[in-house]
Amino acid sequence: MACPADELAQLFGSTITNSTGAAAFICDRFTAASDNFSATQYAVDNTYLLFSAYLVFAMQLGFAMLCAGSVRAKNTMNIMLTNVLDAAAGGLFYYMFGFAFAFGTPSNGFIGRHNFALKSFPSLNFDYSYFLYQWAFAIAAAGITSGSIAERTQFVAYLIYSSFLTGFVYPVVSHWFWSADGWASAAKSTDLLFGSGVIDFAGSGVVHMVGGIAGLWGALIEGPRIGRFGGSGRAVALRGHSASLVVLGTFLLWFGWYGFNPGSFAKILVPYPTNAGGAYYGQWSAIGRTAVTTTLSGCTAALTTLFGKRVLSGHWNVTDVCNGLLGGLAAITASCSVVEPWAAVICGFVASLVLMGCNKLAEKFKFDDPLEAAQLHGGCGMWGVIFTALFASEKYVAEVYPSVANRPYGLFMGGGGRLLAAHLVQVVVIVGWVSATMGPLFFILHKLKLLRISAEDELAGMDLTRHGGFAYAYHDQGEEDGSDQNGGIRLSRVEPTATTRQIV
Amino acid sequence: MACPADELAQLFGSTITNSTGAAAFICDRFTAASDNFSATQYAVDNTYLLFSAYLVFAMQLGFAMLCAGSVRAKNTMNIMLTNVLDAAAGGLFYYMFGFAFAFGTPSNGFIGRHNFALKSFPSLNFDYSYFLYQWAFAIAAAGITSGSIAERTQFVAYLIYSSFLTGFVYPVVSHWFWSADGWASAAKSTDLLFGSGVIDFAGSGVVHMVGGIAGLWGALIEGPRIGRFGGSGRAVALRGHSASLVVLGTFLLWFGWYGFNPGSFAKILVPYPTNAGGAYYGQWSAIGRTAVTTTLSGCTAALTTLFGKRVLSGHWNVTDVCNGLLGGLAAITASCSVVEPWAAVICGFVASLVLMGCNKLAEKFKFDDPLEAAQLHGGCGMWGVIFTALFASEKYVAEVYPSVANRPYGLFMGGGGRLLAAHLVQVVVIVGWVSATMGPLFFILHKLKLLRISAEDELAGMDLTRHGGFAYAYHDQGEEDGSDQNGGIRLSRVEPTATTRQIV
Amino acid sequence: MACPADELAQLFGSTITNSTGAAAFICDRFTAASDNFSATQYAVDNTYLLFSAYLVFAMQLGFAMLCAGSVRAKNTMNIMLTNVLDAAAGGLFYYMFGFAFAFGTPSNGFIGRHNFALKSFPSLNFDYSYFLYQWAFAIAAAGITSGSIAERTQFVAYLIYSSFLTGFVYPVVSHWFWSADGWASAAKSTDLLFGSGVIDFAGSGVVHMVGGIAGLWGALIEGPRIGRFGGSGRAVALRGHSASLVVLGTFLLWFGWYGFNPGSFAKILVPYPTNAGGAYYGQWSAIGRTAVTTTLSGCTAALTTLFGKRVLSGHWNVTDVCNGLLGGLAAITASCSVVEPWAAVICGFVASLVLMGCNKLAEKFKFDDPLEAAQLHGGCGMWGVIFTALFASEKYVAEVYPSVANRPYGLFMGGGGRLLAAHLVQVVVIVGWVSATMGPLFFILHKLKLLRISAEDELAGMDLTRHGGFAYAYHDQGEEDGSDQNGGIRLSRVEPTATTRQIV
Repeated sequence: MACPADELAQLFGSTITNSTGAAAFICDRFTAASDNFSATQYAVDNTYLLFSAYLVFAMQLGFAMLCAGSVRAKNTMNIMLTNVLDAAAGGLFYYMFGFAFAFGTPSNGFIGRHNFALKSFPSLNFDYSYFLYQWAFAIAAAGITSGSIAERTQFVAYLIYSSFLTGFVYPVVSHWFWSADGWASAAKSTDLLFGSGVIDFAGSGVVHMVGGIAGLWGALIEGPRIGRFGGSGRAVALRGHSASLVVLGTFLLWFGWYGFNPGSFAKILVPYPTNAGGAYYGQWSAIGRTAVTTTLSGCTAALTTLFGKRVLSGHWNVTDVCNGLLGGLAAITASCSVVEPWAAVICGFVASLVLMGCNKLAEKFKFDDPLEAAQLHGGCGMWGVIFTALFASEKYVAEVYPSVANRPYGLFMGGGGRLLAAHLVQVVVIVGWVSATMGPLFFILHKLKLLRISAEDELAGMDLTRHGGFAYAYHDQGEEDGSDQNGGIRLSRVEPTATTRQIV
Repeated sequence: MACPADELAQLFGSTITNSTGAAAFICDRFTAASDNFSATQYAVDNTYLLFSAYLVFAMQLGFAMLCAGSVRAKNTMNIMLTNVLDAAAGGLFYYMFGFAFAFGTPSNGFIGRHNFALKSFPSLNFDYSYFLYQWAFAIAAAGITSGSIAERTQFVAYLIYSSFLTGFVYPVVSHWFWSADGWASAAKSTDLLFGSGVIDFAGSGVVHMVGGIAGLWGALIEGPRIGRFGGSGRAVALRGHSASLVVLGTFLLWFGWYGFNPGSFAKILVPYPTNAGGAYYGQWSAIGRTAVTTTLSGCTAALTTLFGKRVLSGHWNVTDVCNGLLGGLAAITASCSVVEPWAAVICGFVASLVLMGCNKLAEKFKFDDPLEAAQLHGGCGMWGVIFTALFASEKYVAEVYPSVANRPYGLFMGGGGRLLAAHLVQVVVIVGWVSATMGPLFFILHKLKLLRISAEDELAGMDLTRHGGFAYAYHDQGEEDGSDQNGGIRLSRVEPTATTRQIV
Repeated sequence: MACPADELAQLFGSTITNSTGAAAFICDRFTAASDNFSATQYAVDNTYLLFSAYLVFAMQLGFAMLCAGSVRAKNTMNIMLTNVLDAAAGGLFYYMFGFAFAFGTPSNGFIGRHNFALKSFPSLNFDYSYFLYQWAFAIAAAGITSGSIAERTQFVAYLIYSSFLTGFVYPVVSHWFWSADGWASAAKSTDLLFGSGVIDFAGSGVVHMVGGIAGLWGALIEGPRIGRFGGSGRAVALRGHSASLVVLGTFLLWFGWYGFNPGSFAKILVPYPTNAGGAYYGQWSAIGRTAVTTTLSGCTAALTTLFGKRVLSGHWNVTDVCNGLLGGLAAITASCSVVEPWAAVICGFVASLVLMGCNKLAEKFKFDDPLEAAQLHGGCGMWGVIFTALFASEKYVAEVYPSVANRPYGLFMGGGGRLLAAHLVQVVVIVGWVSATMGPLFFILHKLKLLRISAEDELAGMDLTRHGGFAYAYHDQGEEDGSDQNGGIRLSRVEPTATTRQIV
């Protein structure tokens, strides 16, 4: 809509009274209209991104409730504190370092190096809403890991690994795949990995695999919870204390996933040039499609798990269905923007099988992950990365990643194997990087005896021994009349002393 | 803003240097400005619709928590599983069939027949965000019904009726009243029912009555829960196990209702031609008004119930207030966009009386609905349909339904009786259709002994007998040290075996 | 973008065929483009404001869960009912009176006097979405106060003070500082207080101090709960009954705060004239920055409290961390739009110290506030008001409050002491006004014996004595088989009678 007034004045020519004035009059108004449209784009896109960020933030609440419900009552305060601190410590570390490592541009392909502590903000590249959105992603990765090591990890170990993960390990991975400078980014216009780059749209690999692999190492190094594998080696389910909290957390995560996946477009007011079917076509339509693929994958995985678990266990189990649902959501996260709705059904179906298989393996190898986080986010996330390379549609890949033409797309869609090659590389480097950083960290903490709590503390529960008391007190009569003879929450007797100090 | 360049060239005439070129120069830019505005409309409207859909989806979490809190602890896993599956199975069935039956256009007035499995999507009529929004509505209807038959229904019966309701019964009703092709739609421009069509803006009839009447038949056919009506026939309240979950669910439903009612406009960037009071007037204002009427009706119903129940029962009862609030919201849903705020206060006041009256009747006839869903959604929904025909404002009806001029409006507002006639027809056909489809279905399930669980299972609770264990375990000490002598959750003793199989 | 066609026609001159026609042709289209942009602004700004209002409404759910979790189980129904009624009664009172007192314009500087019951709505000044947003703020103030007087206040006293606060006390304060007519408003263009007016952007003073000071008087006048200060005067923590609900409520409040603080801009499609760094600059950027400062202050306060409490009490306490987080959010509320992110870190750090100090003082003076609401919202709110006057940035103050040029700004930023003077006045008048209205009200209720419940009721719990029963029944077997010997929830024995009446 640029309006060069001199060009228009020449078209008018010298016969009209004031061709320069007339042309300026007209072009001034076109410039104003163009400025108005720019302002509209910024306002609409920022509205879209900010509310998406709020939804992703709501996932942290979802994690907190899911984790709380999945652990035993005696460790509820502990796990919820880790979830609150994922957000809080993550906020400070991502502000100071994480965002700079991830998106500070210009940079090399490995790590960013600008915008520490939001220096030079906003810039032509980034506004505050983008930082907020990325912060919400970073804390999600830390939240995943805290589930794997729940119920037996020292709080100080948690503080250390969480800051390291949010401030360094995760930002570097997101730089590789999502920054415009990243060596494996699909958004680059030159030097794409295998001529393709990695299409991990909202992070099955970048977020879910990172969190899951980190959790895998933590849980492996500190070993299973006491009682998880009985004397005979038989697996004993240490059931979580509240299915209501599990369902609450699962629905909140699903709700927030609409910020996670469709929100990853970052902008919605983007018309697409190839206007196949009329004036209705642009990024708003791709965003809607992304919400639909996300929904269908989750729904299919939930149903598959329902019937699969019915056959395996004889029960219609709601907490297993919740985990299956989340597995379907984690799997579709990489490809949500570039696959057809019918393909999302396949994605969810297989994700459910992957999760059930991983859980079977975990039990076989006496691996104990109270939230199934390594299996769910690691396993289903990995499936999601592969799935993308098989089912990505030519048309959608071209629309969503317009930086180069004629990109490779899904193998099963006739797009050849180059996307698959790139995605196999992604799997290898994520597993490698997270193992090379988080593995040694957990090992050192283990050697320094900072990782696992004592057996007595584990049996008594961390809430009582470290967090000032039990999370629940449904039976509070006894505090006043002393008549609380038959128990209720047995631990409540020790509270008055413990909690008096607490508010001193 | 169409800009025919030849017309402008003629106005310039032949005296200027290049009249064709100047006109094309100018008109090209107007066309670009016009395209920008179109893209803006799509982006803004889709943003509005998608976030509204997310809010409506959050209602499913609200239903889950409300239902969980309203049943006894021993059936919590069961009812929450039905709520998760409403969303999950509803997602697949609505994708495959439901949306096509409801909105597949062109079609006859009775049922749609295009867009199965999102074929030919997006089209000039529909984009993905519209599908997502309608899916969220469909699962709400199924969620209502699950409340009525809670605590005594076989899980397999639930799977059958839920799929049938979401995939067929509800879509057909929504086709009649909401599709542009529906025989009773108010959006048509010709052949309107009684020259008016039915104004059920967000579905007091289409959603709430459908869910409520379906629940009525289910609960009637399987009869009351054991113990609900004592030996002497005296009603015994089988209290829900957690008022906290009830309040949580109620607030989440209220929160989501802002997607349900104001969101039903689907578009927000629509200026209104009759610009009564200045440049600020358009659909955005009607949407804000709709949010306000929704709020006021709910608030009034809550307060009326508070004082009404205080008189009737002697208590200030929070769960009753929650139900009253929801009754006020269900009632305003039909008329929210076409009535004045003061009328919404009347709507909520009467809705509270309707709910208390229906509950009185239910008890008299020994009808047991654990969630009061038939009374609340059926009764208050029906009142909402009638209320619309009495209080719809001439001005707002004209603005919100512009397809024809001089439409009938509310009887008490001087708009004659034709809208009321159409709405009485709506009540009759919804009651008739749902009874004719869901009644026989529940009856057949009953005859096949697939509907109600056994008395032993009902006494023991479904969670233990069908869903792998109890929902809660606040008292988990005993699992390790074996010292759990005085109870806590008594059922926990059977868990280790049950749940071991579960993860195998 | 105004397009005077006669001016353009003169520029064309008389030589072209139809200069008037050509000018009209062109200007008609510019007028259409300008109208389209106006419609876009209304639609985008209303979308932004409405969804922000929904988020603020979600805070009411957050308060309900936070309050429920922070009281003992026996008072859960009571406190949740007050939270539901804050919203419901607040809805009616704010509709009838509150909004008119707060924003009815034109008015004097002390109180508004138009728009009672939304008369003359929408107007050039206000649309419905603005009313909805302000209603959500009003009920937040009442919600704060209900926490301070929890567990010992008669329900009728609650109904009286809550209506008075939402309908009169709070609206008057918001008129002073937020209405364009208010005597201390920073948005006026003449007669600003100290040439500055008060910059209380989202209400550290207007909302949080008002709620906190009201709670202070209520809690002072009725005295501490029985057992709170032992025989020897030693403080005894009366622990809340569910840390899970506390964490749930805290996260929901944080989530809603993104509507509270960034939402207070009300409009997002506002380009800023001083376009320092390129085309990306406008209110959308300020809104994103506001979300970031809000986040950083809350995060810092949470971390500070974590370590501070660890030192003081020896525990890593999640509920204390939650309160610290909320203190950081309450403190940044006044200044969120006008300070740099690094300053927000300072704000949160000090807020945590303020909260710990206030709690120390409260214990010393035997002041009992079950939610620490007076300390948190009163104390940290007051710190937030002062902080703004110290750290407000020149550039941001100019952008966010453009009504006059060269405004005073933060003392530590080189902006002089006039803003601090205005803010000290704000502290004094809020403390004075709320004390002068709510203090006598609570005192009169106290004298009429309407304020505090009897000692027997307090020991037994309000749920049983006033609200129809206990909030929880995890142990429901006994209702059917009569074998419930060892307790569970002991109070359940009395329920059948109580609750039968309830549904009659």
